[in-house]
Amino acid sequence: MKLTLVKVGGAIVEDEKSLNALLDKFARIEGLKVLVHGGGRSATKIAEQLGVQQTMIGGRRITDSETLKVVTMVYAGLVNKNIVAQLQARGVNALGLTGADMNVIVSHKRPIKKVKMDDGTTQDVDYGFVGDIDRVNSDLLADLIAKGVVPVLSPIGHDTKGNLLNTNADTIASETAIALAKHFDVTLMFCFEKRGVLRDPEDDNSVIPTITAADFPTLVADGTVSGGMLPKLENSFAAIASGVKEVIITQADAIDQPGEGTKLF
Amino acid sequence: MKLTLVKVGGAIVEDEKSLNALLDKFARIEGLKVLVHGGGRSATKIAEQLGVQQTMIGGRRITDSETLKVVTMVYAGLVNKNIVAQLQARGVNALGLTGADMNVIVSHKRPIKKVKMDDGTTQDVDYGFVGDIDRVNSDLLADLIAKGVVPVLSPIGHDTKGNLLNTNADTIASETAIALAKHFDVTLMFCFEKRGVLRDPEDDNSVIPTITAADFPTLVADGTVSGGMLPKLENSFAAIASGVKEVIITQADAIDQPGEGTKLF
Repeated sequence: MKLTLVKVGGAIVEDEKSLNALLDKFARIEGLKVLVHGGGRSATKIAEQLGVQQTMIGGRRITDSETLKVVTMVYAGLVNKNIVAQLQARGVNALGLTGADMNVIVSHKRPIKKVKMDDGTTQDVDYGFVGDIDRVNSDLLADLIAKGVVPVLSPIGHDTKGNLLNTNADTIASETAIALAKHFDVTLMFCFEKRGVLRDPEDDNSVIPTITAADFPTLVADGTVSGGMLPKLENSFAAIASGVKEVIITQADAIDQPGEGTKLF
Repeated sequence: MKLTLVKVGGAIVEDEKSLNALLDKFARIEGLKVLVHGGGRSATKIAEQLGVQQTMIGGRRITDSETLKVVTMVYAGLVNKNIVAQLQARGVNALGLTGADMNVIVSHKRPIKKVKMDDGTTQDVDYGFVGDIDRVNSDLLADLIAKGVVPVLSPIGHDTKGNLLNTNADTIASETAIALAKHFDVTLMFCFEKRGVLRDPEDDNSVIPTITAADFPTLVADGTVSGGMLPKLENSFAAIASGVKEVIITQADAIDQPGEGTKLF
């Protein structure tokens, strides 16, 4: 059976208007589905209001224990439950989850890492309560999905020792897609600011409709795929190599339009 | 099959030491189980830090839209997911839920009510986003419980129209117990400050071991049961009349000790 797993970033789910538009479209996707969301901007805002200072290194949030409380409140509470209630209103039987719920996503605390800073120096960085995923336990999840339940995953994992861990939503999406590929034909859909992977970054109409694993090295070699898109596509092809049927990179407002965006397979 | 549903108030789950003690004991309860928790003190604290003014009338929180955000963050996020992670660390396959998740608890917004105030006047009170329960959908929940999942319910319902609703945790406990009584032999356990229902409120050792529905009117008539205990026991006997096998009123530190507290049946 076909299952569509949609990953959407914080910016879209945190604005009421864009969230409503997204959920209207998500509700229209036929068949089994899963939503994975971010929520970083709200977390930053609430942290500010609570006087919890935020430190970002290389685009990653340093998650001390007070920041962990904030992201748990915002991702798993405010953002997740609002999405769940809004989906229920659209007839979608949503179930909001963190990785701790039903032990779905087992992670470990990221060890201290040497990171190259903007000024060229290398520093030991302790990301704090940030998780790297060990495994996704998909059996109970797949049972529920087969019964019509639509999981809504917030970017929080746990280490099975009582610690919740702030976890990258893209990674949750790809690892969950891989785990569910044992049970379903999984399409993984990443919502992106652009309409897809562009042949010419200046031309929004130059969407490359399909990229195969065989094409990919050529597009990297000739510089078509570079920058932030490179790790995204590497992760996507890794997911495909691990059983995910296809990955679609598209805009949030096209998730219900098959054929839009760039299809990787 | 026997199922124990434990309701515990905010004070215990919001203090790390008493929470750990509670969860150690909860993990030791044999058989199927469910936990329902409060979280009011943390909500009041976070609301204060965020500058969201709180109004209480007759011990009930007036839930305007900003307060709803706070209780959603605190109950469904901070408190609930911390409990879930701590239970997972104890080998309990916990699943944190609001009433919106899998459409478990359907409520409606409480209509404006005439309430007698402390000064003797009567006022129309709009409780805001506060829910009164219409029904508990227990089929998917019972499936999961039978598979070893332990639901952890936060006191948030929804109206199926997209609104989350702040909902009394005692009511969630008794309504969920009643709904699950279709599937299991349910013991509903209310954690209380005292060791049980006391014959003499001044004597903590005067616990009444059992009260039957036949005994109850006599205990009300002679004044043994009065004040805040009266509605608690009325609700308990209503749950028993609706299929719950027994209700136990006990202290949080005795939930794993059968025979402690007051047993109603």
